[in-house]
Amino acid sequence: MDEYLLIQKYFSNIGSAFLAEHNVEISVGDDAAVITPKDNIQYIHSVDTSIENIHFLSSMAPEDIAYRSCSVALSDLAACGANPEWYSLAITLPSPDGIWLERFSSGLRDFSDEFKIPLVGGDTTKGSLSITVQVMGTVKKGEAILRSGAKPDQGIFVSGLIGEAYLGLKELQNHKDENSNCSAYLRPKAQISLGRALVGIATSAIDISDGLLQDIELVCKSSHVGAKIYLDRVPTSTNDKSVKVINSGDDYQICFTAPMDKSMEINQVSEKLEIPITQIGLTTRSGKLVLLDELEKEMVIFSGFKHF
Amino acid sequence: MDEYLLIQKYFSNIGSAFLAEHNVEISVGDDAAVITPKDNIQYIHSVDTSIENIHFLSSMAPEDIAYRSCSVALSDLAACGANPEWYSLAITLPSPDGIWLERFSSGLRDFSDEFKIPLVGGDTTKGSLSITVQVMGTVKKGEAILRSGAKPDQGIFVSGLIGEAYLGLKELQNHKDENSNCSAYLRPKAQISLGRALVGIATSAIDISDGLLQDIELVCKSSHVGAKIYLDRVPTSTNDKSVKVINSGDDYQICFTAPMDKSMEINQVSEKLEIPITQIGLTTRSGKLVLLDELEKEMVIFSGFKHF
Repeated sequence: MDEYLLIQKYFSNIGSAFLAEHNVEISVGDDAAVITPKDNIQYIHSVDTSIENIHFLSSMAPEDIAYRSCSVALSDLAACGANPEWYSLAITLPSPDGIWLERFSSGLRDFSDEFKIPLVGGDTTKGSLSITVQVMGTVKKGEAILRSGAKPDQGIFVSGLIGEAYLGLKELQNHKDENSNCSAYLRPKAQISLGRALVGIATSAIDISDGLLQDIELVCKSSHVGAKIYLDRVPTSTNDKSVKVINSGDDYQICFTAPMDKSMEINQVSEKLEIPITQIGLTTRSGKLVLLDELEKEMVIFSGFKHF
Repeated sequence: MDEYLLIQKYFSNIGSAFLAEHNVEISVGDDAAVITPKDNIQYIHSVDTSIENIHFLSSMAPEDIAYRSCSVALSDLAACGANPEWYSLAITLPSPDGIWLERFSSGLRDFSDEFKIPLVGGDTTKGSLSITVQVMGTVKKGEAILRSGAKPDQGIFVSGLIGEAYLGLKELQNHKDENSNCSAYLRPKAQISLGRALVGIATSAIDISDGLLQDIELVCKSSHVGAKIYLDRVPTSTNDKSVKVINSGDDYQICFTAPMDKSMEINQVSEKLEIPITQIGLTTRSGKLVLLDELEKEMVIFSGFKHF
């Protein structure tokens, strides 16, 4: 099958119901996509590559591989408080298997329908399975939540439960059963609504991809602050609150900082969106990340996900 | 080395002199890049993946691998008549080799300096060497040259010489000598100035990546026209005007259509930019691509580059 037919068959018309509302004039099929910017916005752009057996298991359903690869990319936009606009996809495949592609395509449709955004372009190449998703979002001018805005003596909060993806992945590896409850790993949810609601509340935010502590450290570096985190306050679904569980990464929850007088507003966001939000620590002037046990004794931090 | 340090060391500050002029407020280092759109423009977006030993030789200098990967992506914008604005890069590497990365980074700087655009973000992952470059350009509203605008009885033109990349690659494979004259393959030039100059002249355009005839066929499909191409008119540097040479792809020259009464303007563009432009055929009403030999007899067309 040539690239033209492959794109026509599996990658055209994905989320095309949403082309007009995002001002996409030309999408999949030309040399490039053509998009008219909306007024008074800023674009937020991010890109993420997902590689077979590193970022997903090759045994996973193609629908889930597609959804997961897109969702982890979109998660970066959630952390910036952005509205999703459109995405493109560069896929490298060992061979163009029609059944696999049909199912992969269906996972893209799920993603497009959930976030109401179109696929506007991409590339298909031959090689070991790898998926690079580029996502574009918008904020009103000046609204973007950055990593660099935290100040000392602010609360550090996380959404959802931490370690769920790690537990889901373990279950998946043990049972290899498509019906097991591992949706936190298979279909992580980009926290777009939460990110939007945190605009004006959060002073900084990051999505937890590489591990809670490692990602907080990136906020500390960018914001020139320190942090103290209380391990026993980190919300988990298990009694095992080990550093291994909470720092395993892949959660795609949002970790953010906010002034302490925003607690009430944060509670309201949590209730409205039905997403648990938990304060797990405070920013400090020390420039250092400190993890404290239940006796408030400093603990040794093991590293999260290493890219190499 | 962790991803944070790797990005800091090899991917920060590439083309950062050009951040302000393209309204990039936040670039490499945050969750996402933040960009304010200019007024009265449309964005042109494209993405291309380059894979080791398919799109480039692993024996090539890392500087050339970087430059080539970016240039082939930018070439799609050239074909749309766009001004380059910024780019992002997702790189998959077997291991983070400092010397290789330093040289790769230097190739990115060459690219950024030549087209005056900044690197605004990206991703680094572990796996077999693969580089996905996402490029963003702009045109004034309605200016974009598309594949779909050709009408019957218009001229079909190409820039430069066809088959140079094929000949360069052959030389590279035979001599494996970094000093041999293979720049058409090692450092293909995105024809941005030419694309810009063709706005208002060309009715359709495509960059020749997969093979001259194959790419013309895409224009025919999009524009619902046919084409007749005179093989002996296709400009080459060799006497071998075989279909193999002219349809080998990787040329990254621009093939475009234009009304015949634009010939004078096209000559002026060619002279001003010092880029040869040659008419190689005509669009037709037949809906079919026909290749003619020197006796105007129809020839059999072998296919160009197959992605799978």
